[in-house]
Amino acid sequence: MSIEIAVIGAGRIGQIHARNIARHPDARVRYVVDVNAEAATRLADACGASVSDETTALTDPAVDGVVIASSTDTHLPLIVACADSGKSVFCEKPLDLDTSRAEQCRAAAADAGIDLFVGFNRRFDPTFRKIRDAVADGRVGQLEMVTVTSRDPAPPPLAYLRRSGGLFRDMMIHDFDMVCWLTGSEPKSVFATGAARVSQDVIDAGDVDTAAVVVEMHDGAYCQISNSRRCVYGYDQRIEVFGAAGMLRAGNATETRVESADAGGFHTEPALPFFLERYDAAYRHETDDFVRALAGKPHALPGARDGVRALQLADAAEASLKEGRAVPVAG
Amino acid sequence: MSIEIAVIGAGRIGQIHARNIARHPDARVRYVVDVNAEAATRLADACGASVSDETTALTDPAVDGVVIASSTDTHLPLIVACADSGKSVFCEKPLDLDTSRAEQCRAAAADAGIDLFVGFNRRFDPTFRKIRDAVADGRVGQLEMVTVTSRDPAPPPLAYLRRSGGLFRDMMIHDFDMVCWLTGSEPKSVFATGAARVSQDVIDAGDVDTAAVVVEMHDGAYCQISNSRRCVYGYDQRIEVFGAAGMLRAGNATETRVESADAGGFHTEPALPFFLERYDAAYRHETDDFVRALAGKPHALPGARDGVRALQLADAAEASLKEGRAVPVAG
Amino acid sequence: MSIEIAVIGAGRIGQIHARNIARHPDARVRYVVDVNAEAATRLADACGASVSDETTALTDPAVDGVVIASSTDTHLPLIVACADSGKSVFCEKPLDLDTSRAEQCRAAAADAGIDLFVGFNRRFDPTFRKIRDAVADGRVGQLEMVTVTSRDPAPPPLAYLRRSGGLFRDMMIHDFDMVCWLTGSEPKSVFATGAARVSQDVIDAGDVDTAAVVVEMHDGAYCQISNSRRCVYGYDQRIEVFGAAGMLRAGNATETRVESADAGGFHTEPALPFFLERYDAAYRHETDDFVRALAGKPHALPGARDGVRALQLADAAEASLKEGRAVPVAG
Amino acid sequence: MSIEIAVIGAGRIGQIHARNIARHPDARVRYVVDVNAEAATRLADACGASVSDETTALTDPAVDGVVIASSTDTHLPLIVACADSGKSVFCEKPLDLDTSRAEQCRAAAADAGIDLFVGFNRRFDPTFRKIRDAVADGRVGQLEMVTVTSRDPAPPPLAYLRRSGGLFRDMMIHDFDMVCWLTGSEPKSVFATGAARVSQDVIDAGDVDTAAVVVEMHDGAYCQISNSRRCVYGYDQRIEVFGAAGMLRAGNATETRVESADAGGFHTEPALPFFLERYDAAYRHETDDFVRALAGKPHALPGARDGVRALQLADAAEASLKEGRAVPVAG
Repeated sequence: MSIEIAVIGAGRIGQIHARNIARHPDARVRYVVDVNAEAATRLADACGASVSDETTALTDPAVDGVVIASSTDTHLPLIVACADSGKSVFCEKPLDLDTSRAEQCRAAAADAGIDLFVGFNRRFDPTFRKIRDAVADGRVGQLEMVTVTSRDPAPPPLAYLRRSGGLFRDMMIHDFDMVCWLTGSEPKSVFATGAARVSQDVIDAGDVDTAAVVVEMHDGAYCQISNSRRCVYGYDQRIEVFGAAGMLRAGNATETRVESADAGGFHTEPALPFFLERYDAAYRHETDDFVRALAGKPHALPGARDGVRALQLADAAEASLKEGRAVPVAG
Repeated sequence: MSIEIAVIGAGRIGQIHARNIARHPDARVRYVVDVNAEAATRLADACGASVSDETTALTDPAVDGVVIASSTDTHLPLIVACADSGKSVFCEKPLDLDTSRAEQCRAAAADAGIDLFVGFNRRFDPTFRKIRDAVADGRVGQLEMVTVTSRDPAPPPLAYLRRSGGLFRDMMIHDFDMVCWLTGSEPKSVFATGAARVSQDVIDAGDVDTAAVVVEMHDGAYCQISNSRRCVYGYDQRIEVFGAAGMLRAGNATETRVESADAGGFHTEPALPFFLERYDAAYRHETDDFVRALAGKPHALPGARDGVRALQLADAAEASLKEGRAVPVAG
Repeated sequence: MSIEIAVIGAGRIGQIHARNIARHPDARVRYVVDVNAEAATRLADACGASVSDETTALTDPAVDGVVIASSTDTHLPLIVACADSGKSVFCEKPLDLDTSRAEQCRAAAADAGIDLFVGFNRRFDPTFRKIRDAVADGRVGQLEMVTVTSRDPAPPPLAYLRRSGGLFRDMMIHDFDMVCWLTGSEPKSVFATGAARVSQDVIDAGDVDTAAVVVEMHDGAYCQISNSRRCVYGYDQRIEVFGAAGMLRAGNATETRVESADAGGFHTEPALPFFLERYDAAYRHETDDFVRALAGKPHALPGARDGVRALQLADAAEASLKEGRAVPVAG
Repeated sequence: MSIEIAVIGAGRIGQIHARNIARHPDARVRYVVDVNAEAATRLADACGASVSDETTALTDPAVDGVVIASSTDTHLPLIVACADSGKSVFCEKPLDLDTSRAEQCRAAAADAGIDLFVGFNRRFDPTFRKIRDAVADGRVGQLEMVTVTSRDPAPPPLAYLRRSGGLFRDMMIHDFDMVCWLTGSEPKSVFATGAARVSQDVIDAGDVDTAAVVVEMHDGAYCQISNSRRCVYGYDQRIEVFGAAGMLRAGNATETRVESADAGGFHTEPALPFFLERYDAAYRHETDDFVRALAGKPHALPGARDGVRALQLADAAEASLKEGRAVPVAG
């Protein structure tokens, strides 16, 4: 008996989730919903699903769960609708660009008693997960310093930037979730610096593309996060955790393990190009866990509270950037 | 329109191929054949295929190709039957333990005009392929030295050893194919040393478990191959090619990219445990190419000639081990 | 004709400098001065020098330069005395724990027209120097992010901590100098967080042992610095510079290049234990440059201005730590 | 009280030894002897030694030991002269190109009761020594496979090649000694292949520049050795030892630990250029041990027997290359 899932949003990220569901031995994409009928049809065909509309998809009793991968502004009404129909939801990050609306998402789900999971895909990366498990097992002892480096290959287009909510809500939100997840602690305060140094589009959007942030956790660990919207050697995704008993770090992944040597020295490949390649396995494991959750099995999916907290960190970072001081994190 | 494939043999390797075919968007497992009815049924169910017998599978006009993954002694009669039915074949290595019977396989296929491909899976490993392509592109200049290190995690059981054909036909046969494929040249002579140092079972089977071999190619490159049936740090699979313009090498793959540090120093994971994990991607790419071949598209599958040549190298190595001298390779 | 140098201070760091001078083909330790007569005699004997007192050492016309490696509180009067005698000075860091006194050192030297060099030994590490030269050559393009990780193996004794001036003046002062030197820019503001998490002694001394600091430079680069007084895997000394055209980083040095593999995976050595081992070559190159400077040749020694600036950064960091906001750097 | 040493031969290798002795706190170069008076004077001046002739140097009772770094054909008469005068000798490798003459060296020293040490400098490389000590401590368990890769940056001039004794005596002799030293066992047989592929000079000298050799040891370990006279990425010097309990390997050394990243990937430096840089520390440790030996203290210097054995291996390799079979090693 298969878990039946409706996928709302047939764009890039919706396609990833739909295809991973379609390949899953215990799950099936029942419906694909998208305002773009052509995109919906194409994805439905590729997954053996039907094209449908929101109302049908969310009210069909055969649907076990809903993946929301549509534009951010649609998340709140869709989550409310799912809550009304009693459907569990996996929603892409961020829940909303506005923390109070994200909180409404959380409350709607909680009131209705549905699960609301948030797509922090990096938690499902095998390398990061191994580090997090080792930290939880006490392998580095008392955690003292976490360092997260996230660099995108190139800035997104101006149109994307304008509606992205800014670097802290669009990009660093993953790193904010990572430091909470890795430390197993709650954020106390944030200090943020940053500037637009990479791209005129970023200046035009009133955003920053380069940022260095320090988060202090309630358990005393400090977290250094640096972001850049441009990185010529690929999608740079590294973390390091340091504590009383040692250090663990995650290096970048490459396509192959070839090393070459010539008169210039020794050479290895650039990092994988971007998140689709880098987090390919993470997306699959995330889907696995959503299917497990819908089947009532143990899973490790982050919930609405995690989604709200990451936004609270982004809010605090934005305030800190303006005020030049450490800002306490709400919550 | 899907490529329809019959899979003969529902053991470990047959399962890998069947599942990769089942996941392929353009192919389907039509039949699973195995003398063990339970194994056949289980695999057929997992792949959406029917259980069948050889005659049905090989004569059904809807079958485009046959995967032979049954025991080595069945390869020759099955290939002859496929040749009679005009079905293209992908046969697991080795074609046969006896070179003259392998040659009969090749001849039967050639006479009938069917394709006969051999399962040298390592050619489809992305890391090795990248090195081979770089060599073919002249990136290391004139090739002078190839070094192949293959170490299994632990010796197989005595029963397997007794019917394996010995280290050179069972294990080093992959490395023999690799050096021919990497250099793009033909073997001229082989010198082999080796002994049973790892396991009493190997002694009982009259085999060796540790071997150091030098192959000289017609283009002048020397190839050093070392094999061991035991390796405590995982399945060690490395190659290095050295030439006038530089060097390329393939390191071992690991499950994650975690590095840890403690008072003992810096640590990374053991190599992946064995071939199923290490060559997971290679098996998928191999299936992709078989489907392409059956669809009449370009592919890189090794043929019967490659299978025979690797056996000729194994024969020469065995002779060299006995005689203590370099032995010319037939062909 | 040899350069004649007086070494004041026969402790650990004085011994390093004296021995490097004694091994130098063009230089000689003429005098060793220390209030501890036994230490002075032992070092003088090892270097073929005479034991002397300050007055003699600083007024002997044969003395070309003076190395000041005595306790920090003696630096100012000694520098003034050297200025009076017209002797060029190499002074260990910090010039003084108090910035205004350090500024007096600088002014005394400037007024007297003597050279006053400061012992920021890391500038002479071949790995760091290669990175700095590559940055200066534009190899990473516009510099956007500098990350410096400095971790001592273990906290110093309480007595040392009490007179150390605190983590920012005693330990991070090196990193403050590094970011100025690497970027070739001046510091604009500092944000500092930190706590005593490692040692009760540090708490007793009213100091911090764990700190995460962000320095913003006038050219727009952000510098992340993290320090810890405890590191179980050796003396961790890494830097990374990131910019528009790429990234450069310095890994830790080890005693040998041995890699081992066992069932637990692959292992390399801990980082070198502490600064004597890690900066052995740097100390030699530093001496080479002091000898060159005294001989009127080109050199790369940091001057009094660099020493003062690093203290201004430490002052700002201390203020930031108290106030929870970014603090502008004087100068 | 200083150990007084006479250095015979003021060429490249004589200079290394003389300067390391001159820098040694417990030793002194008393005499430098060379037929080239200018070279002798220059080196003597640099080391604070006197220029002298063989007779004076070898008969002066103040001389504790003699370093022979003159041309290979002079080794035998000089060793005999040292034996007559009762002076202990450190002789550069090889003792002689002819094994019977090398044996005469050994016998002369043994009969006279003097120590005769041979300059296998690689035994003093800290990385190799750490591996050898780990093997001796049983860290890899029963040793099964040793792999030695030695690649010179470029072939020597024709004149050198003609009098070098050939690749096996001139270059691989170091590797022959290494495998005996690493395994702690004696060689049983050698199989050698090789050809001139790099240089016309090598063809003209009747030598080979590329070789792959297998040595079987009496304890059952196999040793793969590969040599090349050309390597574009520096002086490639690697060893790997593999056994029942794991693997140890020595990577190449580089000048710094800088890693760079750009659109082409990640890059590290070429290997150090040649033996002077690569074995700089080894030469110093070798001198340290010769001084210890002359002072009657424990040391790890290889003796005449090791020098003869390496030549016996070279003889066997040369015979094997001609005969195409494994050749037993004398002794």
